[in-house]
Amino acid sequence: MRPDGRKPTQIRPVKITRDFNIYAEGSVLIEVGNTKVVVTASVEEKVPPFLRGSGQGWITAEYSMLPRSTESRNIREVVRGSPSGRTQEIQRLIGRSLRGVVDLKKLGERTLWVDCDVLQADGGTRVTSITGAFIAVADAMIKLTEAGKVKSNPLKDFIAAISTGVYGNEVVLDLNFKEDSAAKVDMNLVMTGSGEFVEIQATGEEFTFSQEHLNKMIEYGKLGIEKLINIQKQFIEGVPSLGHWKRKDIKEFYFEDK
Amino acid sequence: MRPDGRKPTQIRPVKITRDFNIYAEGSVLIEVGNTKVVVTASVEEKVPPFLRGSGQGWITAEYSMLPRSTESRNIREVVRGSPSGRTQEIQRLIGRSLRGVVDLKKLGERTLWVDCDVLQADGGTRVTSITGAFIAVADAMIKLTEAGKVKSNPLKDFIAAISTGVYGNEVVLDLNFKEDSAAKVDMNLVMTGSGEFVEIQATGEEFTFSQEHLNKMIEYGKLGIEKLINIQKQFIEGVPSLGHWKRKDIKEFYFEDK
Amino acid sequence: MRPDGRKPTQIRPVKITRDFNIYAEGSVLIEVGNTKVVVTASVEEKVPPFLRGSGQGWITAEYSMLPRSTESRNIREVVRGSPSGRTQEIQRLIGRSLRGVVDLKKLGERTLWVDCDVLQADGGTRVTSITGAFIAVADAMIKLTEAGKVKSNPLKDFIAAISTGVYGNEVVLDLNFKEDSAAKVDMNLVMTGSGEFVEIQATGEEFTFSQEHLNKMIEYGKLGIEKLINIQKQFIEGVPSLGHWKRKDIKEFYFEDK
Amino acid sequence: MRPDGRKPTQIRPVKITRDFNIYAEGSVLIEVGNTKVVVTASVEEKVPPFLRGSGQGWITAEYSMLPRSTESRNIREVVRGSPSGRTQEIQRLIGRSLRGVVDLKKLGERTLWVDCDVLQADGGTRVTSITGAFIAVADAMIKLTEAGKVKSNPLKDFIAAISTGVYGNEVVLDLNFKEDSAAKVDMNLVMTGSGEFVEIQATGEEFTFSQEHLNKMIEYGKLGIEKLINIQKQFIEGVPSLGHWKRKDIKEFYFEDK
Amino acid sequence: MRPDGRKPTQIRPVKITRDFNIYAEGSVLIEVGNTKVVVTASVEEKVPPFLRGSGQGWITAEYSMLPRSTESRNIREVVRGSPSGRTQEIQRLIGRSLRGVVDLKKLGERTLWVDCDVLQADGGTRVTSITGAFIAVADAMIKLTEAGKVKSNPLKDFIAAISTGVYGNEVVLDLNFKEDSAAKVDMNLVMTGSGEFVEIQATGEEFTFSQEHLNKMIEYGKLGIEKLINIQKQFIEGVPSLGHWKRKDIKEFYFEDK
Amino acid sequence: MRPDGRKPTQIRPVKITRDFNIYAEGSVLIEVGNTKVVVTASVEEKVPPFLRGSGQGWITAEYSMLPRSTESRNIREVVRGSPSGRTQEIQRLIGRSLRGVVDLKKLGERTLWVDCDVLQADGGTRVTSITGAFIAVADAMIKLTEAGKVKSNPLKDFIAAISTGVYGNEVVLDLNFKEDSAAKVDMNLVMTGSGEFVEIQATGEEFTFSQEHLNKMIEYGKLGIEKLINIQKQFIEGVPSLGHWKRKDIKEFYFEDK
Repeated sequence: MRPDGRKPTQIRPVKITRDFNIYAEGSVLIEVGNTKVVVTASVEEKVPPFLRGSGQGWITAEYSMLPRSTESRNIREVVRGSPSGRTQEIQRLIGRSLRGVVDLKKLGERTLWVDCDVLQADGGTRVTSITGAFIAVADAMIKLTEAGKVKSNPLKDFIAAISTGVYGNEVVLDLNFKEDSAAKVDMNLVMTGSGEFVEIQATGEEFTFSQEHLNKMIEYGKLGIEKLINIQKQFIEGVPSLGHWKRKDIKEFYFEDK
Repeated sequence: MRPDGRKPTQIRPVKITRDFNIYAEGSVLIEVGNTKVVVTASVEEKVPPFLRGSGQGWITAEYSMLPRSTESRNIREVVRGSPSGRTQEIQRLIGRSLRGVVDLKKLGERTLWVDCDVLQADGGTRVTSITGAFIAVADAMIKLTEAGKVKSNPLKDFIAAISTGVYGNEVVLDLNFKEDSAAKVDMNLVMTGSGEFVEIQATGEEFTFSQEHLNKMIEYGKLGIEKLINIQKQFIEGVPSLGHWKRKDIKEFYFEDK
Repeated sequence: MRPDGRKPTQIRPVKITRDFNIYAEGSVLIEVGNTKVVVTASVEEKVPPFLRGSGQGWITAEYSMLPRSTESRNIREVVRGSPSGRTQEIQRLIGRSLRGVVDLKKLGERTLWVDCDVLQADGGTRVTSITGAFIAVADAMIKLTEAGKVKSNPLKDFIAAISTGVYGNEVVLDLNFKEDSAAKVDMNLVMTGSGEFVEIQATGEEFTFSQEHLNKMIEYGKLGIEKLINIQKQFIEGVPSLGHWKRKDIKEFYFEDK
Repeated sequence: MRPDGRKPTQIRPVKITRDFNIYAEGSVLIEVGNTKVVVTASVEEKVPPFLRGSGQGWITAEYSMLPRSTESRNIREVVRGSPSGRTQEIQRLIGRSLRGVVDLKKLGERTLWVDCDVLQADGGTRVTSITGAFIAVADAMIKLTEAGKVKSNPLKDFIAAISTGVYGNEVVLDLNFKEDSAAKVDMNLVMTGSGEFVEIQATGEEFTFSQEHLNKMIEYGKLGIEKLINIQKQFIEGVPSLGHWKRKDIKEFYFEDK
Repeated sequence: MRPDGRKPTQIRPVKITRDFNIYAEGSVLIEVGNTKVVVTASVEEKVPPFLRGSGQGWITAEYSMLPRSTESRNIREVVRGSPSGRTQEIQRLIGRSLRGVVDLKKLGERTLWVDCDVLQADGGTRVTSITGAFIAVADAMIKLTEAGKVKSNPLKDFIAAISTGVYGNEVVLDLNFKEDSAAKVDMNLVMTGSGEFVEIQATGEEFTFSQEHLNKMIEYGKLGIEKLINIQKQFIEGVPSLGHWKRKDIKEFYFEDK
Repeated sequence: MRPDGRKPTQIRPVKITRDFNIYAEGSVLIEVGNTKVVVTASVEEKVPPFLRGSGQGWITAEYSMLPRSTESRNIREVVRGSPSGRTQEIQRLIGRSLRGVVDLKKLGERTLWVDCDVLQADGGTRVTSITGAFIAVADAMIKLTEAGKVKSNPLKDFIAAISTGVYGNEVVLDLNFKEDSAAKVDMNLVMTGSGEFVEIQATGEEFTFSQEHLNKMIEYGKLGIEKLINIQKQFIEGVPSLGHWKRKDIKEFYFEDK
């Protein structure tokens, strides 16, 4: 039995509030259960040094948790002087994932900054950041395209992410913090709208896992990703093969898995 | 004429959402116009080294702006390695102000961490932080008192803060970012419910100001503080002289100045 | 009664030694009671990035205390890795104040570095820095003007600063360290030769203060500022309205308030 | 065709020199093709603060590359002030992997520091570190057991790691730097002697990958891991189920895959 | 010919002002030509961790230059975040030298902090720091002894330091900045009152030097050290062999070499 | 008697392995007794800012010890955030020494990075670094010359370094760690092939030393340097006066002093 009574493949309620920030080119507040993340996508008209003159753009993700986003307060990273290893690992994952579905050549010499700030954490903050970031990025890309700054929309596909893991002896989907802390194996899965993998990270912290468990975690993960991409499609209409992307006129969407 | 058509002494709409965070001992989302700040009050059962064994508590404030809280994206402070001078000055102001209305001896050897995270900035983020922090702190103090951890509530008075300044040649109240950038003089005023000053900071960046302007800024500031404390009183019932403080049953309040 | 027997409005003896440093464009050793600060003004022929191409100059102040400038030795800031919040707040105050009396457009694209290094501290180091800095800056500005590097002297007015506060229940002027540590309210006042305010900072650390106290602190502060500007006038002859500034031939001046 | 003419499942020559360091409790120089890593295992008789009093030990891994371990010289990390995100991610992976095969309770309140210093890099430095670290750790654990400091050997299993990926359109095993730079997908696989997974990380940097590719990468990875563990068995005799671990009398071993 | 017309073995005028700081246990302002250094000796009643419980004391020196102590302004070290290599090398030299003439066991578990702050630099700041530090340290040691905190004075001998070098093709003593910049070889010599060496550092930056030059530099250095120790003897009366040290009643001394 | 039974002037066995690194322009693994240092010389086609446009090159040395190069493990410097004072002092010594035998004008606007990484430390790591660095640098210079990038070889002379000191009451040569820790005086000597000094550093940590000891240390040092330069001549054929430098065809050399 899961702590909140969910079925193994049942995901938590998802609520997305679009344009949560009035300044950013794209922004959402995404809530998955008690996990709440503000994601903004900001366009900067220059690239990091290693890309100058290449005609190519870049996507950089930054991730941070408010000190009291967790049950007991954490020290602010700026006080420690630098982002922790965990933070940097998450930032690299988010950036890499989004670069997997954006054509950086089409983007041109500009940087897309994706800021993921966790207001409240209850497990799955990194995958929630990726799922939310897709909408913020898509909105920013559509804005760039409509403004004629890029010739065609650089977006290549939908992308979402979810966690699975082995809790007790059962494979479960979308772990909350309680489950995550007790899980023997933890997997983060990033996939596209066309069902391809972008990233798989499976870790048996102090445990090992079998091929059978691996297969089941992937199967469950795919189920969850499909649900999340369906939610994204409430906000964004897209035909990747045609390079067709359009903003739907919706401000807020709430999904409850039954 | 003010950019948003307000009268000189008219403040922006104020909205306060209480218990915005499920973990913190006290928390609000306070919105003043387009300025939005999440404030959490966290109780830690120990004090900084200089107070150990003193029987006395401490209040520390931390302040941060999300990178895209402003019109163009700012570098995250952790990336620069340490809080900027501006950040530290604001943190010191907020902490000092709150310590002005909390009896640190009654608080006992515990630290109250007040985190002010600016989600969106449109002027007045430091004063808005103080005004919002009062409710978060009061809720935390009431919780401590009801839990029997302190003998009597350490709260001594209401406290709120507001900005005034000389915009054009006129004194105006509650400056938004546009006004603040163009103001000749900028004053931040922190006052208690009983009308005493806690802090006055008046700065003529590249300008100077007369006694007359000073008097008028203080007069307007007092008007604003009264309105803000009235809003706080929707959430907190308090008779400072009796040490009586009680949480009113309200989740959200919206005030529009006419 | 004040610890050193002074009357409430009596300031400590002031001694200024000009050209204390042979390299700087302007420099003084200023002593107010036991507080001793070396101030140098250095001209650099470039501006910070945000002003490049603007035709405008900048004034940056840096402040530091020698480790044994205080009764017990302090850790050197470089050992801690960055200037403390207090240091940065003071630096910002000094820089802002001086920018209030220098026309940055007339200064042209150059930076004036004002270094305030406290050799010995006995209260009022930040205000003493400002008062001394005026002479160092004026000397540097006169040198620039005479060298024909600026068309007309960028100096707009005299400027000096002093502290006042509520000690015991009385308002007193020019607090030494002993008074400062015990004061209920502490005010720093920065004013120009023409009697305008540049900055007012009044703080009731763990206390609050009334309008009456505020008024009296301002009144006393004005008295002190006048005395200090009279001392500056021993070194610098100036008619701000005519942009007329001249160096008087004096190396050292000692003032005792009776 | 692979750049060095290898077959898809052929791994590079592996050379291990044991006791490369005279001070460490365990140490190897491991060479896989042109990749050379010195790994030392150091035992410290205390644990990090979060484990004090828990009776449990810890394993921390640190990873670093000499500046000229790569084709063009890199800036030393100490010059930049902190380990890069990549370094921290690798350190976390190595530490986590080794903790997967060491019983931290049996280890007792001591820390095992595993230092992986890359003398020369030609792809696969993190997986080579893990494979080499097993021998250094096993030697240290055997030494601890024989010295009677632990009651029974904390080692639970063999562990090794290897990279696979999609190079061109083919899945290949043990990528060198040239292949790694051009690979569409890159997978690092960490497995135990009993064929269980400890960690899977598959990344499609700017590419995505199918279920079919995933399956083949895992299959190839397993083949490589088996070969590596056979090499480890030249140095260490172990029957995990019996907790039996013994050092074989060998100083150096060279393996060439045909 | 030397730039300031001195003879090869002639040292610059030396002026020492004792008790320049009212708080420190010992302090001087030492001026050698245009080089001016404030040295304070502060006693702290504890030792660094590596000496706790050893019954032994420690001497730590810190060295810093005011930003405008040099002809063009330097960046403050705290702004760069850490002391430069040069600063640390000088600090280590000063500390090591002073530890050479203080019996750390007699000092007991306390730390002597020697702060050398250069107000104005014209060559030889590190050797001037050592020469001045002797008086500050001796005064502090005498104070400790008279207060009965140590059983007998820990001081073992006088100590002073001077620079020599090869300027043009001639060996000269006590180089000023102009000479130092152009010198082919630069030597710093630290010696005791009894004529023993404590430290010799001879460097041929982009040049090499012969045994003959080495001998002559040492010979000249010894001459200079004798003169400096004679100046110290104006302030401190000492018979090292008897452990007899006494403060002479003098506030200021000026020496001109002819 | 010396701990390892050597005669006072006997140096430890020296083994040099050339081209230890396949990427660097020059590299060696140098072993002196149990001290092992990898030295690489890397050519970068640009200079630090202060030399841009000067037509002149630069040599920068970096030095680091692997954490377990010593008997007990040390904290990695990157973890502390910056190189220690000792590290910086050593880096400065190595760089300065090598610049003493390289004509920086002939080198042209390029930087030679000399990285000295200590794999195992048993005394004398800094002098061993210099002795080994000569071969790496010479190889790099010969490569530059043969590639026609410099008109004539910038190398001016052989250079080697050794330690001597007073151990017990005897002067000994080439101290190992045990001797170094107990030595009363420690001297590092850097000399050229033509018998000139480049650097002398003699330190009496908590001891002083006489002219007689100084002379003997220099005499012994010279003996050692000659032996080391003879070893270098197995690898490099050089006639400094003719600017003639050639690589001898040898990969490894072992020398035992009898």
